[in-house]
Amino acid sequence: MDTSRILILFTSKDGNTAQMAELVEEGAASVPDTEVRRLRTSDASIDDLYWADGVACGSPTNLGILSWEMKRWWDVVALDAWAKIDGKIGCAFSSEGGLGGGAELACQSMMTVMQNFGMLTFGVTDYVSKGYTLHYGATAARAPRDERDRESCRRLGRRLAEFVGCYVHGRRDLHPNNAAYPRFP
Amino acid sequence: MDTSRILILFTSKDGNTAQMAELVEEGAASVPDTEVRRLRTSDASIDDLYWADGVACGSPTNLGILSWEMKRWWDVVALDAWAKIDGKIGCAFSSEGGLGGGAELACQSMMTVMQNFGMLTFGVTDYVSKGYTLHYGATAARAPRDERDRESCRRLGRRLAEFVGCYVHGRRDLHPNNAAYPRFP
Amino acid sequence: MDTSRILILFTSKDGNTAQMAELVEEGAASVPDTEVRRLRTSDASIDDLYWADGVACGSPTNLGILSWEMKRWWDVVALDAWAKIDGKIGCAFSSEGGLGGGAELACQSMMTVMQNFGMLTFGVTDYVSKGYTLHYGATAARAPRDERDRESCRRLGRRLAEFVGCYVHGRRDLHPNNAAYPRFP
Amino acid sequence: MDTSRILILFTSKDGNTAQMAELVEEGAASVPDTEVRRLRTSDASIDDLYWADGVACGSPTNLGILSWEMKRWWDVVALDAWAKIDGKIGCAFSSEGGLGGGAELACQSMMTVMQNFGMLTFGVTDYVSKGYTLHYGATAARAPRDERDRESCRRLGRRLAEFVGCYVHGRRDLHPNNAAYPRFP
Repeated sequence: MDTSRILILFTSKDGNTAQMAELVEEGAASVPDTEVRRLRTSDASIDDLYWADGVACGSPTNLGILSWEMKRWWDVVALDAWAKIDGKIGCAFSSEGGLGGGAELACQSMMTVMQNFGMLTFGVTDYVSKGYTLHYGATAARAPRDERDRESCRRLGRRLAEFVGCYVHGRRDLHPNNAAYPRFP
Repeated sequence: MDTSRILILFTSKDGNTAQMAELVEEGAASVPDTEVRRLRTSDASIDDLYWADGVACGSPTNLGILSWEMKRWWDVVALDAWAKIDGKIGCAFSSEGGLGGGAELACQSMMTVMQNFGMLTFGVTDYVSKGYTLHYGATAARAPRDERDRESCRRLGRRLAEFVGCYVHGRRDLHPNNAAYPRFP
Repeated sequence: MDTSRILILFTSKDGNTAQMAELVEEGAASVPDTEVRRLRTSDASIDDLYWADGVACGSPTNLGILSWEMKRWWDVVALDAWAKIDGKIGCAFSSEGGLGGGAELACQSMMTVMQNFGMLTFGVTDYVSKGYTLHYGATAARAPRDERDRESCRRLGRRLAEFVGCYVHGRRDLHPNNAAYPRFP
Repeated sequence: MDTSRILILFTSKDGNTAQMAELVEEGAASVPDTEVRRLRTSDASIDDLYWADGVACGSPTNLGILSWEMKRWWDVVALDAWAKIDGKIGCAFSSEGGLGGGAELACQSMMTVMQNFGMLTFGVTDYVSKGYTLHYGATAARAPRDERDRESCRRLGRRLAEFVGCYVHGRRDLHPNNAAYPRFP
């Protein structure tokens, strides 16, 4: 069986998005036969992008969209991969300065970038607790301290690994509709 | 002195967005010489739109954007106003099913609609408490029960009335930079 | 080999989006072992959605987002399918009143809706001629009269059928990177 | 009478967005008593932002959103202005690699950034010729060679100067509803 390869690519200023990235990794790694690279943009090369089947892209919410450092990575470092990575699967996560601060829009901006590269992007229908979801990616106000924030990040990583396993590697048992864990508590 | 005229236009299914609308009204009405009409789409006509200097548009977050009922109002009821209401001022509010559920995107969709009509749209920089803001409009997970959710709605209405007073009626004292209340607690 | 099942779901007022839908169908049907249902929202039921592996969603650009009729279909007709259709694949197309009129934003709004349902959404990297692409879905100013507009619609349908064939039915030869036709003329 | 102060802030790689910026300036300068600064991000300081009543923000469409250089300007150079420039008026323009390439989304991303700063943002209802508009900002596929592309840029600048004159400086004659030129040819 082919291993699913997940790149968790992020920038972080205050460490909040970095903490989210660790949790996204936890979630992805909870799916058997998944290999994860968790990298800051400063440490990630275009080869990491080629390597990956799926990408979780994370940035602080800076003015309602992704950080300039993350944008620079895609504009400059990743540019040669354009038209070569169609069909990879992508999702997003973001830490905002406060609730209502634009994290959903920041996730949308990262998905817009990945769609431009021909990637398939998704959010997650699941609720991680009553009144708490990640429909357009995992979001947190500042650090993911609350257990719901933490589970939201894990669920994003898990879903990414599931979709990659299911669609890229034909492991139909990983389809979210077959999930053994409670998706709607 | 001319009175500022504010239309609070909303749809609501479970009553949550309706509660938000009341609070938006409170905020708008707290600005002197402001007249408010708070109307469900079923009760609002195109004349209410012509009457208004500014519009706060509120909808439940339904699938990440505004409700079909709200869209229908603009598509059908308001259509003749197109190209006649340029320069009115607009903002948005939305109740979502859970945090991370798309309320910011729903606000964005309402601002996209109002921009199409030539309106000027805005969010609010203020924080209503530590870690709680309304940068792209007022959002709440379900009912605005929490005092921060409630103040977020009031602040939106107040800012709308301030911008209308300042820009449409020349009351420079109402510019948010002259605010007497704490904008960043 | 399993047949790929494609739903082309649309609303149309002046017939322009309906013409686009026909061309999207042409493109999808050009992929072997693909079955297509092309349906107006008035004729489409929730069972068509359950049936489909992939959905091309088309609407006129009405005020910069999808039409209220299309929104109503997802809000009302499709609602029970929520959390049951995760992982289906979706894309969008839209006819706008004029270039610069919001068709890209309308496509984005349809993808936002489909993402809410847990679907994977995509645009197309390909250029259908020099200076003409469909990065966020197929767009046309009024009717798709120009051959480039027409090819843009066909390409969208073809790509949808390719992704569905490749990912849902394991037909790796259909991956766009293996395309026999010129993707960048 | 106070002079209206317009900042045209842009980045450009191939010179296309730079050409658009010149035309936006032409349009703004056509409004009496308007002073314009047209500056690349590399030449613009935070004082230019404080100086301005209105900002036209232009960037190439890079991966469906603004360029990293433009984002960096707002993230780094302009950051101290946050919460000090509420109520300024903003709009956007973008050159994309091809029609359907994301210029509307790029304009949306710039308006999202400006809204985060508390600015009022707008698009333009006017058609500059049959089937050609700028509802979410001025867009062009590559260089603004076509006269319609050129007029689209001019109209954006003109509208910005009109709104600034009307709302910030109380020159009611400048309201677009009083325009002496044909807005819908």
